[in-house]
Amino acid sequence: MTNASNPRLAAVVFDWAGTIIDFGSCAPMGAFVRLFEQFGVQLTIDEARGPMGMAKWDHIQALGQLPRIAAQWAEVHGQPFTDADVDHLYEVFTPMNAAVVADFADFIPGAIEVVNTLRARGLKIGSTTGYNRPIMDIVTPIAARGGYLPDNLVCAGDLAAGRPSPLMMYRTFADLGVWPPCTVVKVDDTGVGIEEGLNAGTWTVGLAVSGNAVGLPLAEWQTLGPAQQQALRESATAKLKASGAHYVIDSVAELLPVLGEIEARLLRGDRP
Amino acid sequence: MTNASNPRLAAVVFDWAGTIIDFGSCAPMGAFVRLFEQFGVQLTIDEARGPMGMAKWDHIQALGQLPRIAAQWAEVHGQPFTDADVDHLYEVFTPMNAAVVADFADFIPGAIEVVNTLRARGLKIGSTTGYNRPIMDIVTPIAARGGYLPDNLVCAGDLAAGRPSPLMMYRTFADLGVWPPCTVVKVDDTGVGIEEGLNAGTWTVGLAVSGNAVGLPLAEWQTLGPAQQQALRESATAKLKASGAHYVIDSVAELLPVLGEIEARLLRGDRP
Amino acid sequence: MTNASNPRLAAVVFDWAGTIIDFGSCAPMGAFVRLFEQFGVQLTIDEARGPMGMAKWDHIQALGQLPRIAAQWAEVHGQPFTDADVDHLYEVFTPMNAAVVADFADFIPGAIEVVNTLRARGLKIGSTTGYNRPIMDIVTPIAARGGYLPDNLVCAGDLAAGRPSPLMMYRTFADLGVWPPCTVVKVDDTGVGIEEGLNAGTWTVGLAVSGNAVGLPLAEWQTLGPAQQQALRESATAKLKASGAHYVIDSVAELLPVLGEIEARLLRGDRP
Amino acid sequence: MTNASNPRLAAVVFDWAGTIIDFGSCAPMGAFVRLFEQFGVQLTIDEARGPMGMAKWDHIQALGQLPRIAAQWAEVHGQPFTDADVDHLYEVFTPMNAAVVADFADFIPGAIEVVNTLRARGLKIGSTTGYNRPIMDIVTPIAARGGYLPDNLVCAGDLAAGRPSPLMMYRTFADLGVWPPCTVVKVDDTGVGIEEGLNAGTWTVGLAVSGNAVGLPLAEWQTLGPAQQQALRESATAKLKASGAHYVIDSVAELLPVLGEIEARLLRGDRP
Amino acid sequence: MTNASNPRLAAVVFDWAGTIIDFGSCAPMGAFVRLFEQFGVQLTIDEARGPMGMAKWDHIQALGQLPRIAAQWAEVHGQPFTDADVDHLYEVFTPMNAAVVADFADFIPGAIEVVNTLRARGLKIGSTTGYNRPIMDIVTPIAARGGYLPDNLVCAGDLAAGRPSPLMMYRTFADLGVWPPCTVVKVDDTGVGIEEGLNAGTWTVGLAVSGNAVGLPLAEWQTLGPAQQQALRESATAKLKASGAHYVIDSVAELLPVLGEIEARLLRGDRP
Amino acid sequence: MTNASNPRLAAVVFDWAGTIIDFGSCAPMGAFVRLFEQFGVQLTIDEARGPMGMAKWDHIQALGQLPRIAAQWAEVHGQPFTDADVDHLYEVFTPMNAAVVADFADFIPGAIEVVNTLRARGLKIGSTTGYNRPIMDIVTPIAARGGYLPDNLVCAGDLAAGRPSPLMMYRTFADLGVWPPCTVVKVDDTGVGIEEGLNAGTWTVGLAVSGNAVGLPLAEWQTLGPAQQQALRESATAKLKASGAHYVIDSVAELLPVLGEIEARLLRGDRP
Repeated sequence: MTNASNPRLAAVVFDWAGTIIDFGSCAPMGAFVRLFEQFGVQLTIDEARGPMGMAKWDHIQALGQLPRIAAQWAEVHGQPFTDADVDHLYEVFTPMNAAVVADFADFIPGAIEVVNTLRARGLKIGSTTGYNRPIMDIVTPIAARGGYLPDNLVCAGDLAAGRPSPLMMYRTFADLGVWPPCTVVKVDDTGVGIEEGLNAGTWTVGLAVSGNAVGLPLAEWQTLGPAQQQALRESATAKLKASGAHYVIDSVAELLPVLGEIEARLLRGDRP
Repeated sequence: MTNASNPRLAAVVFDWAGTIIDFGSCAPMGAFVRLFEQFGVQLTIDEARGPMGMAKWDHIQALGQLPRIAAQWAEVHGQPFTDADVDHLYEVFTPMNAAVVADFADFIPGAIEVVNTLRARGLKIGSTTGYNRPIMDIVTPIAARGGYLPDNLVCAGDLAAGRPSPLMMYRTFADLGVWPPCTVVKVDDTGVGIEEGLNAGTWTVGLAVSGNAVGLPLAEWQTLGPAQQQALRESATAKLKASGAHYVIDSVAELLPVLGEIEARLLRGDRP
Repeated sequence: MTNASNPRLAAVVFDWAGTIIDFGSCAPMGAFVRLFEQFGVQLTIDEARGPMGMAKWDHIQALGQLPRIAAQWAEVHGQPFTDADVDHLYEVFTPMNAAVVADFADFIPGAIEVVNTLRARGLKIGSTTGYNRPIMDIVTPIAARGGYLPDNLVCAGDLAAGRPSPLMMYRTFADLGVWPPCTVVKVDDTGVGIEEGLNAGTWTVGLAVSGNAVGLPLAEWQTLGPAQQQALRESATAKLKASGAHYVIDSVAELLPVLGEIEARLLRGDRP
Repeated sequence: MTNASNPRLAAVVFDWAGTIIDFGSCAPMGAFVRLFEQFGVQLTIDEARGPMGMAKWDHIQALGQLPRIAAQWAEVHGQPFTDADVDHLYEVFTPMNAAVVADFADFIPGAIEVVNTLRARGLKIGSTTGYNRPIMDIVTPIAARGGYLPDNLVCAGDLAAGRPSPLMMYRTFADLGVWPPCTVVKVDDTGVGIEEGLNAGTWTVGLAVSGNAVGLPLAEWQTLGPAQQQALRESATAKLKASGAHYVIDSVAELLPVLGEIEARLLRGDRP
Repeated sequence: MTNASNPRLAAVVFDWAGTIIDFGSCAPMGAFVRLFEQFGVQLTIDEARGPMGMAKWDHIQALGQLPRIAAQWAEVHGQPFTDADVDHLYEVFTPMNAAVVADFADFIPGAIEVVNTLRARGLKIGSTTGYNRPIMDIVTPIAARGGYLPDNLVCAGDLAAGRPSPLMMYRTFADLGVWPPCTVVKVDDTGVGIEEGLNAGTWTVGLAVSGNAVGLPLAEWQTLGPAQQQALRESATAKLKASGAHYVIDSVAELLPVLGEIEARLLRGDRP
Repeated sequence: MTNASNPRLAAVVFDWAGTIIDFGSCAPMGAFVRLFEQFGVQLTIDEARGPMGMAKWDHIQALGQLPRIAAQWAEVHGQPFTDADVDHLYEVFTPMNAAVVADFADFIPGAIEVVNTLRARGLKIGSTTGYNRPIMDIVTPIAARGGYLPDNLVCAGDLAAGRPSPLMMYRTFADLGVWPPCTVVKVDDTGVGIEEGLNAGTWTVGLAVSGNAVGLPLAEWQTLGPAQQQALRESATAKLKASGAHYVIDSVAELLPVLGEIEARLLRGDRP
């Protein structure tokens, strides 16, 4: 429990893809592209990345509203893209996504070590995700065998609304027994994930490099020169800052010093 | 969903005993008295009422820490009252409470009408309670047959901490899909129930007469003269105000005008 | 199991209100009238009865499409009655219905005796209903205490579509392990309930007097003279025949001879 | 937990009908008689009582093996009574039993007081029964409203075998966390219930008057003269002693002194 | 939903082994042989294949009734093969089958592509199987990782009877919300699977080469010359035609044109 | 079921790690060492092995009470090791253990063959373990794919107390439907696992070489010379005998002759 007048950090809530697993958050990209292809619509990887972090139903809806996609759809199908189309594409998307998600389940370097250290310090580990239950039923046993067993899991589709609403965070507070929100840190690689934390009143840490904002697999990132890396880092950082992130770092591997700083601010009375 | 810049009321969260059913919140009182009696300790009804609104385990713990009770216990049992004693008394208490709770399940006058009106206006109906699941398994079917079917129910013991922590409210936000907290009103007859709402960031309405603060059955209340009633009302109101209630009214029957006022304040930008 | 070339009756599937309990199927009527009243719309009992047998969501939708009701709604609310309005009214309706359903749970005379006889003959007893789960959670324990424990229960809302679709019947075949459909009899007091049976390929028996088609409580029915009764019976019978019922009788009390006749037809090779 | 070298009583496991509720264990008797009647076989109440305490399927099988019943069945049905007939009668029996069980759910005088005292002394309360789940789903909420909430419930049909096997007791040890068996007392009004306790290695207390062994409703028992009562008591006591009961008393109201004696024997090293 | 007067295909229901995964339906064969071996009975692979498609309990029972096997059993065990023996062998079989099933979970070429295309066209994907739940608990996560997530799953043992009864199909109609049966196609590699579809009133497509009817692993099939393949194809096709299949094709990869033809027949009023 | 006067073996209950999988019971050792390291305390593998077989919470508690560890903890943390520390370390331990357990899930040679033979002889296969549910959720699907599907599973933490209490065995008797206890054999590689069987009244067989008592991975064991092996075997055997094991063998591969001997002793009236 928490002493309201002298609060200490009680929990860190992590997103999954691009945050703990799947460097570059690459799993769903090909699936989105193939999905639209199957319906006669050409989508680029960059377009596919735009709404990343949202629940996948919302993500597909958002893609269908891009002017270039909306136009293609209307031309091919003879009528505009509707919510019933989203329902339909979503049903097709889920098994396509399932087919690849296990291939993108490697841990981001440092993730397990940081999580173990947080546990050793007595913090709870929460988790929310834009994936739905059938996808997470594939991901969680793989992560568990790798030693990642967070104290809860809230999936897109479990609650009435996904990100950027704070509902998955509220559910996490209740599951973990932590409050007030200033004792919690949300760590996420997407803008809507940062907003989810802000809307719930928590501290937020954006991950610029390991996730959707840069969007490159680890091997590819490592082949870049320092200047190229810096340019991508800066652009990604700017995006996450624009969403309101209190801090932006490269990846979860750099989280511990930031948490130290948040602890210090809490002690001197700062609030998110 | 909610338009954050122009929020409208989205839900009302009600306590159960003393708020919707059981005028005077009388069900647990006799059970507490008989409980301590069975262990050789004399407790008055007024002492029993003190911690009302808390989860029953916490309530028994609080009673055992009253100096008069602590002294009796130590004398009879030859050692101080410990948490293991609370565990034991709580196991004995639950079936005692179960034995009487159905006799105290009448609706408080006006409750059903107000709830139906709120639903007709499109508001969600949440509920939290200091009773545990076995007790609510007796109460909810009785209430359902009377037409009270709230959209969720969180019991003491479901989560890591009860009132005055905001955990049951956070769970309710997630269950109902409502946010930000300023779109929710907590209605309760006890101080810890008001604090539960405040800690979660909602508006709060205290009920002075129908619940624990006055603590009289309806028939008894009705036999009092206006002056007596007013004296009790004022004392109860002061207690609930001291806990921070934004509004205090006699009972749920008077709730609608208060909600109107809260709506108006929301529109002009006031927040709880 | 069934010998396909020489089938015997294997199961009877009963509707609930107007068939086994609630003579006159009166429980939902007042609730529908009060529901629309709360939204400023006047509805007659006769209008309310029209879509009886459907799932309650569909029932409310159907009422809102009656020209007289649609006009009132548009006038009061300044816009036409939409599916979102149905969602909203349905949420309000459920607790209203719950509040009265226990008062209308008496068995229709003869129901228990007929069901016991069917069981003694080795038939399975299935059940489907237009009520949803929260309502049936109130009704089934009352019926169980009265000795009615059917082998399965499918509620409106359990499956993707209600009556007149055959989905609830298909689920019942699977639950009870009975087939082919010609070994099953559907007994129902409403037209859509008869169609549900026909769409699933079963025999159907309509109940003219005990249910929605006449729509009078038992006491009221009994005060009528023989001529009045006969007029109502004939009109109700005509309606159920028009829906395709193979047989129409007054109430479940008269079911056994009809089953005998169906058995005989099965033996000589007739099929529904 | 238990100190194996110096064990104290840890739990009492009660049967339900004839032990805690339903003085005279009268609920199933009429149902058995009507059941066989429906299949053309005359059964007396005394015959019906014979196998009392068994699971109801086993009970029906046992009745069908009584020579007088077997002969009637063979004559009426033209073939001997088989397990398939038991299956069929059992399906018919359950709703018949359900129809009456709520009318026989009054507590046996003293039951609640004794149970509350045991809890106050820190003992766990276990329960096993010859009723199946659908019947207990009717009985347990009635008992709960009366204040009887045992710490577990094992029904006939939950496990691979019923009484006199010790399986329901083993499950109870695991549910309650009590051992060795000499720290547990089984209280039952039937011979197979006593054997269930003995087979699990517990102490056993038979109830001669309140249950199946005398088999009279409370009102009827109270009209008898002392000599008549004594004759019935002695005969019932002899039956339960013959099953191996360590103690036999009139009803649960007399349990406390017996438990005191068992505690004393435990202390001086006696074992059941 | 479906327009009864102008129905369109709404769902395809696939068997698992030999239809979607496990070319040649080879997983259970070795297990059956080793099973009987362990009980001293020699069984050939061809004998083992005979009852393929049935639930495994029924399959073992059928094998034990083959004259050659029945004779061996009687000689080794000194008594005939009974249902109790089937129970026992079935318990031994399940873990043996579990031990190999993951090694036979590769998709049949074209399966995923066809299923994805069907989804893109808006059809639901149902599934039924002769495997039981513990086996499917091993198979379904493997298939899910490969991208095969059908909309439902009914296992042998879930319902009162397996194939050739239509119960698993009825359950599938209810799960998927599809009707009338002429809007559904059953795809299966075994005779009893085809009969299951026919008994439920659906169209049926037999798979001659990929499944039990030819019974060769993919690699082995591919080594055969065209003449050998054709001979096996013809024999297998004849068997499936004899079971009543409307169409017979080599494997699921050839399904799409057949569905086109069924659509066309539906439009001109043909029914299965 | 069992004939009490002439009992036959009905079930064998196996431990998991060191008994069926994980030769040498090596999975948790490194995890314990790393766990304490993370809290600044040095632990040797030999120290870590001491309490093996206990539930992991109890194991951590036991390690913290070793004088050498208690002293280190007090020095590093400035206060003694308390139950709250155990809670904390246990939360950290579980994901660490999860991370390695799949790498130690190979079957011990002979395990599957012996289990299959026991099933073929009609014995039930029970299982209990010192692992908790999250760990077993990783282990059981791996074992199932390998063909090991025991008839039940009771984990540490499922019941009120773990080994050496007999609660998990009682639960197993109820799950499997076996009794009296003399018809059951417990097979385990640890002292507390042997005591668990003895406390429940079963026969017990200790495994000296494959498990914790020797504590070497298979490859390492095989590199030892016969004399070294014999020395380790004798020391391990002595430990298990000291716990009361009726028999001690090298590994599960040697179980069948021992069961034959137990069967013979049962027949001549011996009891465990």
